[in-house]
Amino acid sequence: MLSVIVRSALTKYRGSWLPIQAAVRAMSSSGGPTPPYTTLAISHPTESVTHVELHRPEKRNAMNKAFWREMVECFNEIAEDPDCRVVVVSGAGKTFTAGIDLMDMASDVLQPQGDDVARISWNIRKTIARYQETFSVIEKCPKPVVVAVHGACVGGGVDLITACDIRLCTQDAWFQVKEVDIGLAADVGTLQRLPKVIGSRSLVNELALTARKLYADEAKSSGLVSRVFADKEALMAGALEMAGEIAGRSPVAVQGTKINLIYSRDHSVAEGLDYMATWNMSMLQTQDVMKSAQASMEKQSPKTIAFSKL
Amino acid sequence: MLSVIVRSALTKYRGSWLPIQAAVRAMSSSGGPTPPYTTLAISHPTESVTHVELHRPEKRNAMNKAFWREMVECFNEIAEDPDCRVVVVSGAGKTFTAGIDLMDMASDVLQPQGDDVARISWNIRKTIARYQETFSVIEKCPKPVVVAVHGACVGGGVDLITACDIRLCTQDAWFQVKEVDIGLAADVGTLQRLPKVIGSRSLVNELALTARKLYADEAKSSGLVSRVFADKEALMAGALEMAGEIAGRSPVAVQGTKINLIYSRDHSVAEGLDYMATWNMSMLQTQDVMKSAQASMEKQSPKTIAFSKL
Amino acid sequence: MLSVIVRSALTKYRGSWLPIQAAVRAMSSSGGPTPPYTTLAISHPTESVTHVELHRPEKRNAMNKAFWREMVECFNEIAEDPDCRVVVVSGAGKTFTAGIDLMDMASDVLQPQGDDVARISWNIRKTIARYQETFSVIEKCPKPVVVAVHGACVGGGVDLITACDIRLCTQDAWFQVKEVDIGLAADVGTLQRLPKVIGSRSLVNELALTARKLYADEAKSSGLVSRVFADKEALMAGALEMAGEIAGRSPVAVQGTKINLIYSRDHSVAEGLDYMATWNMSMLQTQDVMKSAQASMEKQSPKTIAFSKL
Amino acid sequence: MLSVIVRSALTKYRGSWLPIQAAVRAMSSSGGPTPPYTTLAISHPTESVTHVELHRPEKRNAMNKAFWREMVECFNEIAEDPDCRVVVVSGAGKTFTAGIDLMDMASDVLQPQGDDVARISWNIRKTIARYQETFSVIEKCPKPVVVAVHGACVGGGVDLITACDIRLCTQDAWFQVKEVDIGLAADVGTLQRLPKVIGSRSLVNELALTARKLYADEAKSSGLVSRVFADKEALMAGALEMAGEIAGRSPVAVQGTKINLIYSRDHSVAEGLDYMATWNMSMLQTQDVMKSAQASMEKQSPKTIAFSKL
Amino acid sequence: MLSVIVRSALTKYRGSWLPIQAAVRAMSSSGGPTPPYTTLAISHPTESVTHVELHRPEKRNAMNKAFWREMVECFNEIAEDPDCRVVVVSGAGKTFTAGIDLMDMASDVLQPQGDDVARISWNIRKTIARYQETFSVIEKCPKPVVVAVHGACVGGGVDLITACDIRLCTQDAWFQVKEVDIGLAADVGTLQRLPKVIGSRSLVNELALTARKLYADEAKSSGLVSRVFADKEALMAGALEMAGEIAGRSPVAVQGTKINLIYSRDHSVAEGLDYMATWNMSMLQTQDVMKSAQASMEKQSPKTIAFSKL
Amino acid sequence: MLSVIVRSALTKYRGSWLPIQAAVRAMSSSGGPTPPYTTLAISHPTESVTHVELHRPEKRNAMNKAFWREMVECFNEIAEDPDCRVVVVSGAGKTFTAGIDLMDMASDVLQPQGDDVARISWNIRKTIARYQETFSVIEKCPKPVVVAVHGACVGGGVDLITACDIRLCTQDAWFQVKEVDIGLAADVGTLQRLPKVIGSRSLVNELALTARKLYADEAKSSGLVSRVFADKEALMAGALEMAGEIAGRSPVAVQGTKINLIYSRDHSVAEGLDYMATWNMSMLQTQDVMKSAQASMEKQSPKTIAFSKL
Repeated sequence: MLSVIVRSALTKYRGSWLPIQAAVRAMSSSGGPTPPYTTLAISHPTESVTHVELHRPEKRNAMNKAFWREMVECFNEIAEDPDCRVVVVSGAGKTFTAGIDLMDMASDVLQPQGDDVARISWNIRKTIARYQETFSVIEKCPKPVVVAVHGACVGGGVDLITACDIRLCTQDAWFQVKEVDIGLAADVGTLQRLPKVIGSRSLVNELALTARKLYADEAKSSGLVSRVFADKEALMAGALEMAGEIAGRSPVAVQGTKINLIYSRDHSVAEGLDYMATWNMSMLQTQDVMKSAQASMEKQSPKTIAFSKL
Repeated sequence: MLSVIVRSALTKYRGSWLPIQAAVRAMSSSGGPTPPYTTLAISHPTESVTHVELHRPEKRNAMNKAFWREMVECFNEIAEDPDCRVVVVSGAGKTFTAGIDLMDMASDVLQPQGDDVARISWNIRKTIARYQETFSVIEKCPKPVVVAVHGACVGGGVDLITACDIRLCTQDAWFQVKEVDIGLAADVGTLQRLPKVIGSRSLVNELALTARKLYADEAKSSGLVSRVFADKEALMAGALEMAGEIAGRSPVAVQGTKINLIYSRDHSVAEGLDYMATWNMSMLQTQDVMKSAQASMEKQSPKTIAFSKL
Repeated sequence: MLSVIVRSALTKYRGSWLPIQAAVRAMSSSGGPTPPYTTLAISHPTESVTHVELHRPEKRNAMNKAFWREMVECFNEIAEDPDCRVVVVSGAGKTFTAGIDLMDMASDVLQPQGDDVARISWNIRKTIARYQETFSVIEKCPKPVVVAVHGACVGGGVDLITACDIRLCTQDAWFQVKEVDIGLAADVGTLQRLPKVIGSRSLVNELALTARKLYADEAKSSGLVSRVFADKEALMAGALEMAGEIAGRSPVAVQGTKINLIYSRDHSVAEGLDYMATWNMSMLQTQDVMKSAQASMEKQSPKTIAFSKL
Repeated sequence: MLSVIVRSALTKYRGSWLPIQAAVRAMSSSGGPTPPYTTLAISHPTESVTHVELHRPEKRNAMNKAFWREMVECFNEIAEDPDCRVVVVSGAGKTFTAGIDLMDMASDVLQPQGDDVARISWNIRKTIARYQETFSVIEKCPKPVVVAVHGACVGGGVDLITACDIRLCTQDAWFQVKEVDIGLAADVGTLQRLPKVIGSRSLVNELALTARKLYADEAKSSGLVSRVFADKEALMAGALEMAGEIAGRSPVAVQGTKINLIYSRDHSVAEGLDYMATWNMSMLQTQDVMKSAQASMEKQSPKTIAFSKL
Repeated sequence: MLSVIVRSALTKYRGSWLPIQAAVRAMSSSGGPTPPYTTLAISHPTESVTHVELHRPEKRNAMNKAFWREMVECFNEIAEDPDCRVVVVSGAGKTFTAGIDLMDMASDVLQPQGDDVARISWNIRKTIARYQETFSVIEKCPKPVVVAVHGACVGGGVDLITACDIRLCTQDAWFQVKEVDIGLAADVGTLQRLPKVIGSRSLVNELALTARKLYADEAKSSGLVSRVFADKEALMAGALEMAGEIAGRSPVAVQGTKINLIYSRDHSVAEGLDYMATWNMSMLQTQDVMKSAQASMEKQSPKTIAFSKL
Repeated sequence: MLSVIVRSALTKYRGSWLPIQAAVRAMSSSGGPTPPYTTLAISHPTESVTHVELHRPEKRNAMNKAFWREMVECFNEIAEDPDCRVVVVSGAGKTFTAGIDLMDMASDVLQPQGDDVARISWNIRKTIARYQETFSVIEKCPKPVVVAVHGACVGGGVDLITACDIRLCTQDAWFQVKEVDIGLAADVGTLQRLPKVIGSRSLVNELALTARKLYADEAKSSGLVSRVFADKEALMAGALEMAGEIAGRSPVAVQGTKINLIYSRDHSVAEGLDYMATWNMSMLQTQDVMKSAQASMEKQSPKTIAFSKL
């Protein structure tokens, strides 16, 4: 009920917005990938929100060579786009992602180049570093990223979602740290980020060492996701609504919050506080504080304010 | 029921204690703030326990300029007070705190001094550092701090409680990371401490980026609080009881535990272990170990032991 | 051979439990400690799984002087044993462990040597460092360690289990950070590892400062354990089954996963990713990847693959 | 010769300055300590330069109880004084400092309070932390501190000078890490800062472990001091001249440089760069850059510019 | 072929200089910048050595907008070029570099975009980060970089050379940390790297706070450069000879050495050792070790060995 | 008794050398290695000083398999020996050490075991870690280690000496980071410790990347060694004298100094200060402070005091 209200607020807060159902429909990518991308469909369901859809539905959105490159290009572009304030990531078709496309990637992963163990190792390390960047760009992008998972989220999918800021899923979603099943330690982010994303280390270890599936309920109770929705439609509406909540606030406040939350994860509290003070010594001089404070005193939502682009 | 038993134990363990209800009543600050403080009421409901009450009930305990300064003075004094072994923090009146008192603080926050962006920034940074200290003193004080939240805990309130050691609340409590709504990234502790206090990063990000309210049940399930009580009276009794449990143990053990827990948060396990061994090489020579070991072998509670002051 | 049995048990494990029960029976240590150990019984219930049982049942597996030394020897040996891929730790008799054996340890803990405070301190520090090593060896051993707790897990028991990788318990299990009750800050690992193992800092502080008991349900909801079993028999079967899941996968993948998960805990995400890439530049050249990828494409379990020893 | 030229430049650059000899004379503290201080004489030899003189010449400027407290007060005041841009520290009388005044300090150092090893230790730790602050304030003060050493610089003197930014000395100066001779590891900064101040670790260890004297030539060749002067008069003129060079530049640039140099010492290069960029995003907006750039293009010294106070 | 010449030159290099002089002549960039670059001239004086010459001699190699971008492109390309094993950097014309080209850069530095302090700050921070990358690419490039300085090395020049691995200069070279003279704290590397490059912190602070010039002799005695040459011709011959020494060794050994030296700078010794062991577990499997060991036993120079490309 | 001789030698040591020469003669290891060691000769030239001599003179003290193991045993024993307060390390015969004994080590280094790249890598990493420990034990041993180098110090020799606390050498000594010449990045300490031991990073890089020899004069001016002696006899006398200086001081002070100097190297100044205060809270309670303070006031050398063993 409340969420319906918020939605209509959303749809009106800058004038011309469609109802949220229409917005959700606008996200559907019947037209296929957005050129020049071949694995991603990009849309703008509402002002300030960019939707990035993994789009190889016939392959269960498996991550092929093109995908790893296109994610970097896409998020670097989003990072620079002043019209975008929030990103929603989801998967086209019946499932979020089946993970790495082993067939397509085999040459990189299974047949690395070099005439000597050291030279092969050198090339593998460069390849891994490049693949890690595919998900690190999500973290380096100062705009918050909401990921909406339905169906399977396997292997590389877990690497991807742990680099996002907010995780939502459907009741039928499941997650699997699959790498140990193909003979390797997960190396593009899961082992680094999953333990900092959920609170039970015993569970993290269980998932990473046995490759067992984690279903929506345990994903919620363990804190991997913060909300579970009945089905994909509700999920997308929920993700869009949350994106709208974020997009409606000062981008100076929102993006500064993301940057400092990530900084704090990797530093002591004292270091985090010092960085924060150094950050805000300029950012507090924004006109957004004055506008927001005034709206707050007038009991108005920050979403009614027109903030300059960042 | 058990807690009633514990309470009576508490009231008798050094002779002359009032029943716990009386102790709770002793905490009520009908007389207003304790001079020289104008925003805090200080009392000593039981031996070794100091109660610090936010006391601007008519302003929903909003944090005005005086508050930020008085907290530092108050906790510096408590840190040096050998009669205090545990602190309980709560709020007077209908709610814990409405957060920063924007009206009173406006000159600091909204009209910083300086004739140049750099000089204004310089002054803002000093102001933020000073405000950060208001809550860092809680952490630097080696005595454990139990915070009891009822009603609203907004903005600066979340900064405050995440710097405390144990968080309790009533069923009607709610928490809100409000800063993003007034156009700024929270800069006095929430972004640094909240992610180290609860286990779901997705939830942390959601709270900090959307300013949505977190109610008691989710506060409990996410681990923000470790106990929820029916109402404020039960909350205060519970807080006092827990404080009594802690106050009844060796202050060498208790304060060393707090110091090392905070050290460990900000260091690797190996560094934490090294510091711990270096800490305990002297602290294990305390007579408290001998007294406690003897009581333990005689199946007596540590609370029956008279420990020297620290 | 036995491992084949476990595999079939596993594939059918919601149906017929018989073979795994036989394996569980093989773990029972009616014969007492395994020489040269006097406090540990070592067995090999299935291929690749080593079972380490705390074995002083008549003393509730209290940790005496011999125990602290034997754990180090035992885990150093396991670390080098190519036939072992996973370890299960549990306690003989009615309870997991009552913690430190104060009587036996008193000379070390309560009567340290030296003719001067500095010299006594020096010796205490060396003793603590030696005791810390007793549990750090679990972490340094690259084989995953599953710990199965029933009944009491007190004091040193909590130090022990927080150094293990996966924690399971029975419905009647309880946990107690006991040290504060004997006048000291826990100094062999609990204060360093417990906060990194569960997600609620308020709960960690409560446990460490009040020595209250934590029961199985809260252990599960807080994430301390990832599974709760009805009784000890089910617990041991569950632990063995989980061990079998891990033992059936590539040891290169499994042990690399453990090493990198621990590395990541103590470093920033960026540092963890760099280390991971440097680690995998050689480890991805293993034949295990090829074998596993092939099995995966043929829809076969990794447990059907014969991996070389590591 | 050049320095004479620079001096006259100095004396004229804002109009009314006395010749440097007069300024040096103005530093002489024939009148004794500056109330309320009893161990420090404070003067302002030129605009923007504060001179702090250790002033117990009859005791060879030995550091008594009052000194440790007064340094903190003095530097906290300097940190807030917008009229001060640089500090010069030197010693009155025949020598820089004989180090700690063992007689006066004996009660603190040799007779700590407490009825138990742990409680005595607790108090000692607080005392050491307080003494450490005496020199850390020099580092926390954002204004550069030039220290001018003549004669002896013993024990606590080395702790003091390693916390300063620039070290100068006379030809007859000598330095001694004395603590090992009185049975203790130096604990107020030398062991932490000396190795980060000079480039030869073998020399640092030799000095700290044998308490041998280091004379001016080796102090220069090892990098402990950056300049050696013939006698005290030349030293003071040189210190004042260097202070003038610094005071004549933009305080936004100078103080930002000090803060970032200290930050960089304690962090990786990547962290230092990130902090630097975050710092300068506001500081580059100062009018000082425009003024300085213009002066630079007009081939004028920055010392001719009137910068606003900071 | 050329490399043969260098080798013989090297074996005889205290005798006949002719061949190396030819190589040095090959470095001379009479033709101007190498397209597509407009500020850099790239040549290959000997096999495996790339020469990068700052090439705006008419502007004293001042760093204009194009330069900052071209360095990144150039070093990214070098990092991937298997034919390059070592880089030599020098300046065309009469001097190494006059530093930043204030005229050309003014729009970026002095007129940042944005309609609000926060938005201007945001853009400045991105600009600084981009400029920092201009020199960080030198460090990220695994091939060693030898920098040869003659004449002036001012401002941005110091940022540049401190990111190189080996610093050489002529007798007439001088260095100046100029930023404080134009009103800003140096923000593209000097404050982070200079203190880790030379051993005297007092000198570092003096240079950064007073902008005084450092001449070749003090550059050598302080360790900023490791060799001083009589004139530019000798300098270039010396740089080329040193480059030849490095290029003649196993690239697996050389590049692994650079990577680990940089890693060690930013980590504790224990962390550096762990990373090193993890690095070398694959790199020691190179055939280069066998080839080199054999040459060593046969008393042959490693420069006689043909190593595969890396 | 001998220590009395050394003391008088020391007080007069620019006059009569006889007694110390006798002690030096006592160090000569004509009898060969000290069983059970086969590569080390251990002696006790004066009370409290242990002399460890690399003793394979016919092989130029090349480091064979036995050496790597024996160093660990030897230094672990020294660490526990209360009669030893200082260690002197030197080499028997004509030279300090030729570095690794490639012939003897070939099987470990050149033919690692395993049937798969990953398994070979795994074993190599364990081997490297074991070799690293050979020199890390020097650092973990709390007694200061003075190393006296004559003639060649090649490859592993540099790893060894950089782990020592004080470095001395003869005029004919030379140092060579040799590893790059045999195709590998130095992996047992040089790359980690050398940059933290000398102040010129350009020189460190030059040495490590070109394997050029560093002679005594440059070793002194760069700070690698803190003293140069005319010949081996003077070197050994000088080393013994310095050892005597250290051995004559409080072991509580000396060993605490070493431990904290090493801690400080790997931590920020703030962390080092905190550790130091925590260390000294007990160590200052030693009777050695009182004894030393009294001797100091009586103008007596600390070497006249009888300190208890540590």
